[in-house]
Amino acid sequence: MFFNAALFAAPNKVLAAVSGGVDSVVLLDLLCDLKKSLGFTLAVAHLNHQIRQSAAERDADFVENLAAKYDLPFHLSVKNVPALAKQSGLSLEDAGRKARYEFFFQEAQLHQYDTLALAHHADDQAETILFRLLRGAAAKGLSGITPERREQGVRLVRPLLQAAKQEILAYAAAHALTFQEDETNADTAYTRNKLRLEILPQLKEINPNYQEGLRRTAEILRADDEYLDTEARRLYAEIVVGENPARIKLDAVALQGCHRALARRVVRLAIEKLCGALNDISLSYIENFLDNGLTTISLDENGKLLVSK
Amino acid sequence: MFFNAALFAAPNKVLAAVSGGVDSVVLLDLLCDLKKSLGFTLAVAHLNHQIRQSAAERDADFVENLAAKYDLPFHLSVKNVPALAKQSGLSLEDAGRKARYEFFFQEAQLHQYDTLALAHHADDQAETILFRLLRGAAAKGLSGITPERREQGVRLVRPLLQAAKQEILAYAAAHALTFQEDETNADTAYTRNKLRLEILPQLKEINPNYQEGLRRTAEILRADDEYLDTEARRLYAEIVVGENPARIKLDAVALQGCHRALARRVVRLAIEKLCGALNDISLSYIENFLDNGLTTISLDENGKLLVSK
Repeated sequence: MFFNAALFAAPNKVLAAVSGGVDSVVLLDLLCDLKKSLGFTLAVAHLNHQIRQSAAERDADFVENLAAKYDLPFHLSVKNVPALAKQSGLSLEDAGRKARYEFFFQEAQLHQYDTLALAHHADDQAETILFRLLRGAAAKGLSGITPERREQGVRLVRPLLQAAKQEILAYAAAHALTFQEDETNADTAYTRNKLRLEILPQLKEINPNYQEGLRRTAEILRADDEYLDTEARRLYAEIVVGENPARIKLDAVALQGCHRALARRVVRLAIEKLCGALNDISLSYIENFLDNGLTTISLDENGKLLVSK
Repeated sequence: MFFNAALFAAPNKVLAAVSGGVDSVVLLDLLCDLKKSLGFTLAVAHLNHQIRQSAAERDADFVENLAAKYDLPFHLSVKNVPALAKQSGLSLEDAGRKARYEFFFQEAQLHQYDTLALAHHADDQAETILFRLLRGAAAKGLSGITPERREQGVRLVRPLLQAAKQEILAYAAAHALTFQEDETNADTAYTRNKLRLEILPQLKEINPNYQEGLRRTAEILRADDEYLDTEARRLYAEIVVGENPARIKLDAVALQGCHRALARRVVRLAIEKLCGALNDISLSYIENFLDNGLTTISLDENGKLLVSK
């Protein structure tokens, strides 16, 4: 499936995140087409990340003109991502992602868009799953980028998640769409670039349908993870013996008594309750917690995570 | 960990599967060393697969001499794998694997070896996981080759599963071990060879610790799969409404009512009960069964699998 039109229906108010690169330009064109037949509301959001001043302004102008051409409302925000990265200690890539999502959700809530459409595609999915696999990952990580989920009251959808990059390029060519070269892509982390530019084409040579294999893997692991998470949440209530905003204490005997698959998730749940779901806790952190029979997770006055017996 | 010595203890009677290639030659040398300190029983098994007559005989002689050098009992079997492949419709690789395992288990049971040691290593593990991921796999498949499991009353162990191929070659060089070049490796399926020879070295470049990442992934998914399988077996008893050696009928409402993660496993369990655990049922076969609300799995007089409402 190139474009998952089933994600949209007549009463939706859709905000499309458009960088000006080929993926989001194709997404927007497909959404405009679908809008004609279904009649949902559509608008465009773009973040000027100021990473390369002149290119970033050129991209913002391009997307503003594109929105005008399609006769769509245009929402723009300018954020100094290099400064935000420096401030937070995040990489340029991570700080950019954080700034983009913050802006998109904020605009969606402000203007009551119920659906946020993003242009992630099958190559992004493959790269993400492989990247996580090489680093070590649980089912949640290996289930990759979700095609549809709800966050902060907004439905986040990725209708191109089953489209290969080549199909997207072919669509752009067939419809004579112009787009901006994404210059930030050229200097993202070495690892991801090597995966994207060198490994993925070779995997395609080995198995032309490998993206379908990855999609199926992701779908199956997502169901496993969802079921196990529900079980863990149920267990969590029984295993927690003390909880306040800075400290969670688990019952040692109950934790040791439950299956490792659930014990891991109960500990992760406790960490997420204290630190928020977006923390990047390593798998070995949780293994050590369990292997050493620890029971208590707390935050010190600087917000640093501490674990103890 | 290069060699997992913890898999062996004094009273074990260990049968080492030795092809004569560097992996199993190193395995045997390590086991002989460990035997000196622990004092378990050790013997060597080799299958002459007759794939390339002269090379196969050369390998068998080599392993027989090796066993004599270490002063160990030697068990040999000769099977015409090319003929078996033709007969069964299996690939040469699959028929060879089947013949090998049949012989090893048979010898272990006949001579009461409680432990069967195999020389699979971290590169085999990486190749297997990636191969399955590209084809689409569930948690069981992605948990890769198991370091230790029990089958037909024999404990099957892989003490080199965390050793990289390079470490194995380095050990062989350091201990001046001679071994046979594995000629069948050179013409196994294109896919696996391309993975082994071209992709894995590049993954190592991207992330020198990727095999540790894969190991962790495999360990975590194995626990998930084990827990979910236990749940599915419990459910199975409730969902089956009729069962005989040629036909299993499931309750449609109960099957639709349980979580997809478990429903998939219940259907697989039913198929395994009819066809044996070694069948290669595709993931899409099970998805179709569930999506179409089917309830009955049966075998026709030729042993062909049939599904129906």
